Amino acid sequence: MEQIELQRDVLDHSNRVGYENSDLFARKGIFVLNLMSSPGAGKTTLLERTIELLKGKYGIGVIEGDIATTIDADRIGAHGVAVTQINTGGACHLDSGMIRNAQEDLDLDRIDLLIIENVGNLVCPAEFFLGEDAKVVILSVTEGEDKPLKYPLIFRLATALVINKVDLLPYIDCSVPGIIRDATSINSSLTIFETSCTGRQGLDAWAAWLEGEIHKKKKTGLNT
Amino acid sequence: MEQIELQRDVLDHSNRVGYENSDLFARKGIFVLNLMSSPGAGKTTLLERTIELLKGKYGIGVIEGDIATTIDADRIGAHGVAVTQINTGGACHLDSGMIRNAQEDLDLDRIDLLIIENVGNLVCPAEFFLGEDAKVVILSVTEGEDKPLKYPLIFRLATALVINKVDLLPYIDCSVPGIIRDATSINSSLTIFETSCTGRQGLDAWAAWLEGEIHKKKKTGLNT
Repeated sequence: MEQIELQRDVLDHSNRVGYENSDLFARKGIFVLNLMSSPGAGKTTLLERTIELLKGKYGIGVIEGDIATTIDADRIGAHGVAVTQINTGGACHLDSGMIRNAQEDLDLDRIDLLIIENVGNLVCPAEFFLGEDAKVVILSVTEGEDKPLKYPLIFRLATALVINKVDLLPYIDCSVPGIIRDATSINSSLTIFETSCTGRQGLDAWAAWLEGEIHKKKKTGLNT
Repeated sequence: MEQIELQRDVLDHSNRVGYENSDLFARKGIFVLNLMSSPGAGKTTLLERTIELLKGKYGIGVIEGDIATTIDADRIGAHGVAVTQINTGGACHLDSGMIRNAQEDLDLDRIDLLIIENVGNLVCPAEFFLGEDAKVVILSVTEGEDKPLKYPLIFRLATALVINKVDLLPYIDCSVPGIIRDATSINSSLTIFETSCTGRQGLDAWAAWLEGEIHKKKKTGLNT
């Protein structure tokens, strides 16, 4: 019982800081994404393609979450956008306190779109609100179509689902309609994209959705 | 400070139950594997191929860990081996208490090889000792070669690494020598297999290694 209450207190505190982050980002009119997936589903490559498509039009900031190494932050930094790194030191997810500290390294007045790349993990990151406007889950088709039913929470809480690596479909046994059927049975309001980040397929629809959300958020920021 | 001590107590208790499980399995002469990977790296398919190769020679038992659903247990059950299911109800890893309860559903006197399929997660399962003889980590080449450096703990603690889905290498950008170099820089005693479970490549070496370990463990059981 004590353990349960301690866990609830920790989550309450984490949510409170998440809402403080959210207020700060709203005042600045920044649209904030929390990008989540299994290891190797393609978060960093999607991020690179997104930066290529939107860099000329919008200020982009990136917070890179990793257990160890700066491999992803180095990749993103090479694209000339503002990036800051969180090393969780073994922890399996980012939390709102880490984001509160990390955003201090960024000039928020120059950012319209802030993308947080979470630790590669389809389970734990879903439970923590960081202050984001939207959770986006990326599922690589190589992981198999049973993932929405096996890891339901992250699909239930996501605003958008990116079904990635569709260029590999000819070589594997995975049904995209099956993924979509199961994911929407858990969350009927999911916005779904089918992409290949190496083959550069499906990225225009993704970028157009982001642009729409950036503009909506910008208006809110101007009104506060 | 209190939080850290609580965590240490929980881990101490978990380890104690893990050693009790380990003692029980040793008395029965059962070789026990803890199979871990990201979601969709191929744990269940490797398990199916392993059962096909060894079922006639050894008694095989399987404990299936999942957050939700019985998809994997149903797949394994179809192969006619003893299987029991743990649903973690949201939790991101198996622990020794779950294994202690689950093994009661199996007739240990008929089992030489017990395979525990952990929750798909490259982070949290590594921290929990279940009573296994060996942790095996499966890495799909589709996840990319940077995973050993980015998720070092699981590679450090593993006895064996199965590099899976090598049939997809012609279609992706991933270097197996790069994986091996980084994984062995973390853990120089790793036994490494390169497999395709759909293409049935590399499985004989894997099965031969398992047979060797089963025989070693059987001798220990006879001596206790």
